Amino acid sequence: MIVILKSDVTKEQVAEFADVIKKKYSVDVHTSFGEQSTVLGLVGDTKAVDIDSISAFSVVETVHRVQEPYKKVNRKFHPDDTVIDVNGYKIGGGELQIMAGPCSVESKEQIIGIAESVQKSGANFLRGGAFKPRTSPYAFQGLRATGLDLLKEAKNATGMPIVTEIMSADHIELFEDVDVIQVGARNMQNFELLKELGHCNKPILLKRGLANTIEETLMSAEYIMSGGNENIILCERGIRTYETFTRNTLDVSAVPIFKKLSHLPVVVDPSHASGITWLVEPLSLAAVAAGADGLMIEVHNDPPHALSDGAQSVTPEQFARLSDKILTMSHAMKSIC
Amino acid sequence: MIVILKSDVTKEQVAEFADVIKKKYSVDVHTSFGEQSTVLGLVGDTKAVDIDSISAFSVVETVHRVQEPYKKVNRKFHPDDTVIDVNGYKIGGGELQIMAGPCSVESKEQIIGIAESVQKSGANFLRGGAFKPRTSPYAFQGLRATGLDLLKEAKNATGMPIVTEIMSADHIELFEDVDVIQVGARNMQNFELLKELGHCNKPILLKRGLANTIEETLMSAEYIMSGGNENIILCERGIRTYETFTRNTLDVSAVPIFKKLSHLPVVVDPSHASGITWLVEPLSLAAVAAGADGLMIEVHNDPPHALSDGAQSVTPEQFARLSDKILTMSHAMKSIC
Amino acid sequence: MIVILKSDVTKEQVAEFADVIKKKYSVDVHTSFGEQSTVLGLVGDTKAVDIDSISAFSVVETVHRVQEPYKKVNRKFHPDDTVIDVNGYKIGGGELQIMAGPCSVESKEQIIGIAESVQKSGANFLRGGAFKPRTSPYAFQGLRATGLDLLKEAKNATGMPIVTEIMSADHIELFEDVDVIQVGARNMQNFELLKELGHCNKPILLKRGLANTIEETLMSAEYIMSGGNENIILCERGIRTYETFTRNTLDVSAVPIFKKLSHLPVVVDPSHASGITWLVEPLSLAAVAAGADGLMIEVHNDPPHALSDGAQSVTPEQFARLSDKILTMSHAMKSIC
Amino acid sequence: MIVILKSDVTKEQVAEFADVIKKKYSVDVHTSFGEQSTVLGLVGDTKAVDIDSISAFSVVETVHRVQEPYKKVNRKFHPDDTVIDVNGYKIGGGELQIMAGPCSVESKEQIIGIAESVQKSGANFLRGGAFKPRTSPYAFQGLRATGLDLLKEAKNATGMPIVTEIMSADHIELFEDVDVIQVGARNMQNFELLKELGHCNKPILLKRGLANTIEETLMSAEYIMSGGNENIILCERGIRTYETFTRNTLDVSAVPIFKKLSHLPVVVDPSHASGITWLVEPLSLAAVAAGADGLMIEVHNDPPHALSDGAQSVTPEQFARLSDKILTMSHAMKSIC
Repeated sequence: MIVILKSDVTKEQVAEFADVIKKKYSVDVHTSFGEQSTVLGLVGDTKAVDIDSISAFSVVETVHRVQEPYKKVNRKFHPDDTVIDVNGYKIGGGELQIMAGPCSVESKEQIIGIAESVQKSGANFLRGGAFKPRTSPYAFQGLRATGLDLLKEAKNATGMPIVTEIMSADHIELFEDVDVIQVGARNMQNFELLKELGHCNKPILLKRGLANTIEETLMSAEYIMSGGNENIILCERGIRTYETFTRNTLDVSAVPIFKKLSHLPVVVDPSHASGITWLVEPLSLAAVAAGADGLMIEVHNDPPHALSDGAQSVTPEQFARLSDKILTMSHAMKSIC
Repeated sequence: MIVILKSDVTKEQVAEFADVIKKKYSVDVHTSFGEQSTVLGLVGDTKAVDIDSISAFSVVETVHRVQEPYKKVNRKFHPDDTVIDVNGYKIGGGELQIMAGPCSVESKEQIIGIAESVQKSGANFLRGGAFKPRTSPYAFQGLRATGLDLLKEAKNATGMPIVTEIMSADHIELFEDVDVIQVGARNMQNFELLKELGHCNKPILLKRGLANTIEETLMSAEYIMSGGNENIILCERGIRTYETFTRNTLDVSAVPIFKKLSHLPVVVDPSHASGITWLVEPLSLAAVAAGADGLMIEVHNDPPHALSDGAQSVTPEQFARLSDKILTMSHAMKSIC
Repeated sequence: MIVILKSDVTKEQVAEFADVIKKKYSVDVHTSFGEQSTVLGLVGDTKAVDIDSISAFSVVETVHRVQEPYKKVNRKFHPDDTVIDVNGYKIGGGELQIMAGPCSVESKEQIIGIAESVQKSGANFLRGGAFKPRTSPYAFQGLRATGLDLLKEAKNATGMPIVTEIMSADHIELFEDVDVIQVGARNMQNFELLKELGHCNKPILLKRGLANTIEETLMSAEYIMSGGNENIILCERGIRTYETFTRNTLDVSAVPIFKKLSHLPVVVDPSHASGITWLVEPLSLAAVAAGADGLMIEVHNDPPHALSDGAQSVTPEQFARLSDKILTMSHAMKSIC
Repeated sequence: MIVILKSDVTKEQVAEFADVIKKKYSVDVHTSFGEQSTVLGLVGDTKAVDIDSISAFSVVETVHRVQEPYKKVNRKFHPDDTVIDVNGYKIGGGELQIMAGPCSVESKEQIIGIAESVQKSGANFLRGGAFKPRTSPYAFQGLRATGLDLLKEAKNATGMPIVTEIMSADHIELFEDVDVIQVGARNMQNFELLKELGHCNKPILLKRGLANTIEETLMSAEYIMSGGNENIILCERGIRTYETFTRNTLDVSAVPIFKKLSHLPVVVDPSHASGITWLVEPLSLAAVAAGADGLMIEVHNDPPHALSDGAQSVTPEQFARLSDKILTMSHAMKSIC
């Protein structure tokens, strides 16, 4: 961490300040006196040093972090890709996994029907929402525990591992048979939930928040990992910008950045990123070309009658065609890298 | 709700679609055939109608909501200002309340010392964090239950009602002696928490999320209110934009907008909105001039040694001077309106 | 255009308002009385109707546009792809064109050297800045007219058509030998410049502004086209968001959206979109996978000594490897579509 | 400027790199070797040092600027407030000036009528658009030169100095009788225009761009000032964010920040910042409370029939009431400071 002091600071003030910092944070402080400013380098384990506290000293002009504030998710300290094995299906390490299914689980027939059809078309994971975060209290809130039961029935019928969202740490026990627990964008900084998931041994699919930076997303992964759970999948699902044509703006750059800064696998959700059916195909292909390890796609047998997210769901027939194209793209990428 | 159909839709398709909508949502549908497009008006209680589902029909071009999707917080159905009385101090209805105190409760001496000094300078409410949402798992997480106990001691010592943040519905019982429960920006769409707070009878101070719209904020208030708890204070605390000079961008327009669209009192937090001590004064004055019912200001006796948010805290001496200016501004506003 | 009136408006007010609108804009007005609101449909040529003026009438609640405000760039009225032929190289219509070269033209040796090397690796167009828009008045402003001369020398040496940026309508005469005139992001809404370019018969590469919507970009293209110049290439080069890791955020969704809404070819600039050398490859591949008709890539023989944009330039060697991968991706895309 | 090198860089590489920098930019380089990283301090006149070029060296991890990149507009080198005297009316230095008038000049009667009425209510400057930047080529583009003539007639009739927007350097001669030349938000980075305005001796009102940072705005002022024209007024008019309720989001914090970082006067335009008539009052009051030196308010005698910006214009009657409140607020502020 580099601390730049104000230009009118005296040598005595510098010494006094350096002393306070050394004691408070148990770090070494290297001082470099320049003509226009004095620069301090804080050396040692600075991940707990609070930039805000340092900035509050009256002698300080600005503070810059040199080391990333995340350790366990950092590729520098863990150069190999994390590969997560779910019932034999590998996420990360060169394989491309497609997770498909409806926004909301609605009935036994619906979820099993969709599961069977997307499995036939190449999806290995079944996604489906049982607990649904909805902006309006008057909108369908999901079948909740019943929805989890229906997902398990679909898993039994098809053998597909299931991915579904958790909305409260109180529900963790209900998720015992779930294969991958999803943390939604709105809960990415629900730190009490992240802490609890750190003590659980299931893979966590962590969605980037609507307006969270790449670094904040990695810090949320660090929360889970620092609790002991190292099976984390990052998910880019679009961020909030001024553009209103799409529901969100897919930050496709996040894919190679997450993969460079961390060792975690990265999945892209083109359905939420766009909110528009006809954009799911080009965004899926772009995500694969950017290096994604997987895709999470909303598929519904009857989008206009879906209880949620109808406007962004593809039909099983559309999914079958899309899946073929994704496969072609995935092969091209393997030949490139 | 207005549904505009595609230009090539036949009369039969229009009739069929109108029929489906009528049955699915129990609303009336008025059809207007134009030269270039057919427009349907959905009449009745449309708050549960899902725009996404409507958009998913192949005949639909676009959908526009005419009525606001919130009812209980809507000023149209509740024209009078909500005034919340906390131990005799009124929030809303023309009074200006100042809530002041440290970002984090750190010790008995600290919290009681700050409480006494801000009370002397004009603050009626004591704010202080016990459960702290922090981006990094390695940062100070608050004294948690112990912090709540210290806040109660400060309340006993001064008589000031206390405002403090809740991070999980599991902690509600611990908040029994808290006067105003704060929902932080990162939990504004933690719907499971909002639902629980709807069943509690304490005032809730609901902070606008980092990247949430005014409408989404009102919908989160609607969650709480639809559960039965009508004592809600909205809080504007800055939104995330591209500008990096400030920690967030204070959306001062949100104050008059919240007050026009809803009947709820509105408080502004200039400390989080800016993240910079010297901006707290101009933003406090601007908030009052825009019509805010209250201010929430971080005050710390020793900002450089604060365990969190040092860079944006004012000292008790600075607060005393600021409080005088806020009072002058508040009087000017009363003479204007 | 749909105008929704306030709920308390009388029939007389509706009739009076409809009358004013009919006369002012020469459009037909269809009125539909509902229980809760009255809806007017404006029929005819509404592209000159000003939403702001309509909104200012006291009887109006909200106004929604049904038809797109752009006509000449609209695919609805021009279903076939526009293909722009520049010296035999086609932009649009299924071909992928790579435009490569330095941010700034610096010397004869530099520009000819880079031109020859990128041509050998597969680029058909030479890009290079002569007039440089720089945030700081103290930064290198480009070689200006001399830079244009050097570009022409490179064109003579290699036969590559040249693409370079114009910063003022006063310079149009200087651009006589330029093949494609670029309008930079900061001038996308310099309407006086756009009008002048509408009277010129050269292809215009129009970059999307830093914070301009897709619709605004199409409206700027409409400015040029309504002046008579129909040879427009749209360019997505990243938008400004809250994320600071990258210089801008590539809005990859803009590629399929521009191509659906308009008939114009779309090029992507991964160099400015990211500002980081190692992101140029994944973003180039993602752009092709999303359907881009071309790429514009900054290549410099010695990035650290570049007079501008060093951090985002690739070397000729890196470009050669990248170009191969882009070709593989382009073939894969052809097999998909 | 602080350059942090990668952790695996050798001493030889450091020496070689430092040498290159010294020669290229004529600055001194102070080297500080730490355990984890080597830090270089560049000392001297670094305003022309290009961060991008430095970042492109393979040994560099990150670069941080210590000194602001602007000099002439910097308060550090010019501690006293700039006060601009226009026909005896002072902008800056404690006075509050109100600039009022229609979005567009439409006719002699309109502009003289509005001028007389806003003058009576307390406005000292007349604003009005002759050259109008419009998103659509089909919208009213202003009366152009004729509009300037009408403004001069209004000036002759009332004695009010006039403020109006320039859209191209080609028009500068037409602006000879204009008192304050406005650069609109869309031209804030039209650097060729800024350079020309630097050679003119009239006050320039520089509007912040839709998505430009505070630093970029100051750099654009630096462009004008480095050309020799020191009479610059900064104008905050709202920035583009994800919030759609308002046309833009007023960044009220920009007022105290501009005044701290620079010595230039700051004016706020609440009309464009909100786009909504009923928000003009609270935003005007908030701007004054935040320390603005002036306000620029759109006033139209008949908003629904305005040729542009009807939805955000107040009537002369509304303006008279608003002006009184602004005066009360201004007095309150003088008693506070």
